[in-house]
Amino acid sequence: MGQPKQERAVQTRLALMRAAAEVFDECGYTGAGINKILKRAGLTAGALYFHFGSKEGLAKAVMNAQQDTIEPLLDSRGLQRLVDITLVWSHQLAADPLLRAGVELSLGHEKFVDEAPFEGWRELMTGYLREARDLGELREGVDPEVVARFVVGACTGVQLYARQVDGRAGLPRRVTEMWDCLLPGIAAPGTAHTFDTGVARGKRLSRRTGTTGTGAGE
Amino acid sequence: MGQPKQERAVQTRLALMRAAAEVFDECGYTGAGINKILKRAGLTAGALYFHFGSKEGLAKAVMNAQQDTIEPLLDSRGLQRLVDITLVWSHQLAADPLLRAGVELSLGHEKFVDEAPFEGWRELMTGYLREARDLGELREGVDPEVVARFVVGACTGVQLYARQVDGRAGLPRRVTEMWDCLLPGIAAPGTAHTFDTGVARGKRLSRRTGTTGTGAGE
Repeated sequence: MGQPKQERAVQTRLALMRAAAEVFDECGYTGAGINKILKRAGLTAGALYFHFGSKEGLAKAVMNAQQDTIEPLLDSRGLQRLVDITLVWSHQLAADPLLRAGVELSLGHEKFVDEAPFEGWRELMTGYLREARDLGELREGVDPEVVARFVVGACTGVQLYARQVDGRAGLPRRVTEMWDCLLPGIAAPGTAHTFDTGVARGKRLSRRTGTTGTGAGE
Repeated sequence: MGQPKQERAVQTRLALMRAAAEVFDECGYTGAGINKILKRAGLTAGALYFHFGSKEGLAKAVMNAQQDTIEPLLDSRGLQRLVDITLVWSHQLAADPLLRAGVELSLGHEKFVDEAPFEGWRELMTGYLREARDLGELREGVDPEVVARFVVGACTGVQLYARQVDGRAGLPRRVTEMWDCLLPGIAAPGTAHTFDTGVARGKRLSRRTGTTGTGAGE
């Protein structure tokens, strides 16, 4: 029995993105030949151009797939959801080439000036922070959009610093430290300790997929 | 009358670092030819190899010159000093090619894996945070080293996000927002508002040099 056409298309897209992510990871964006990506994916150039238009289009899809890798693993809400996103992200970066390639491309090494991945994360986080405010979890006067914008920037830099120091081995610990610094200032007075920011939580949530893979679409 | 030999050496080093910073800014590290740097500096290859050993050595000196650009402009202490470093840094990045090139090289685009600039900032900031603790400015239980490590990472990412969104035009405002998020959690209870985190302060402190130049050594 053949697969429904739509499902096949989703799998083709994902196969191309995963192959591209692996090749970007190994060779960098500039060094990643289209033929190498196609060979890795076991697909034709026609599929690539149909789904992404160009190598740059494929790279942008990889950059923008970050949220789809994380969100399906979580069911918390409000401030704990915000914490969970960063905890799982810090763990999955080591295991998931698609996520890692997305983060690397977002750093703009390849003269891509594309703010879409940053702005996508900011919008997602702003939503959870508004939820947190409605749940009474935020300190009075805290602006969800300001905090979201800061957390996106902070995570970007914390992972970059960790990459330079120890190839990101210490990143989960650093993300926990980030929340140790931040929560007392943004959570309602006296509640910072009620949120679980531990490395163990990130590890546990990341295991929900049962794979070391990309989560999304599996 | 000739200059003392030591002063000439300092000026030669600085001239090479400034020329390199400009050429890195325009062409990237890989694209920056040594001859172009030497022509810009009006110096010979001998001077470059004597002072820095190689183009990579010159690039590392540019990366590690960031603190020398900022510190001479400041005379505050404790937590306000930490804030001031980041305020002035956010302003000077627009005006100072040496600082900008140092930051760009630190991001690791060129496969330099050198944690020295990050660790240098962390050590400097840890010192001021210990001073802040001794002055009674920190909330109980706040670890100076943890906060310093986080602030270095956060600043790195906040500027990267700002670069992608608006070429860093909004960076000073984003640094102020960083402190709005952070200070209530790390300053002694009820004191966060006593520190000046405003964009205007960064602008005023940055003007102390009376130049748009590099500060250090002038």
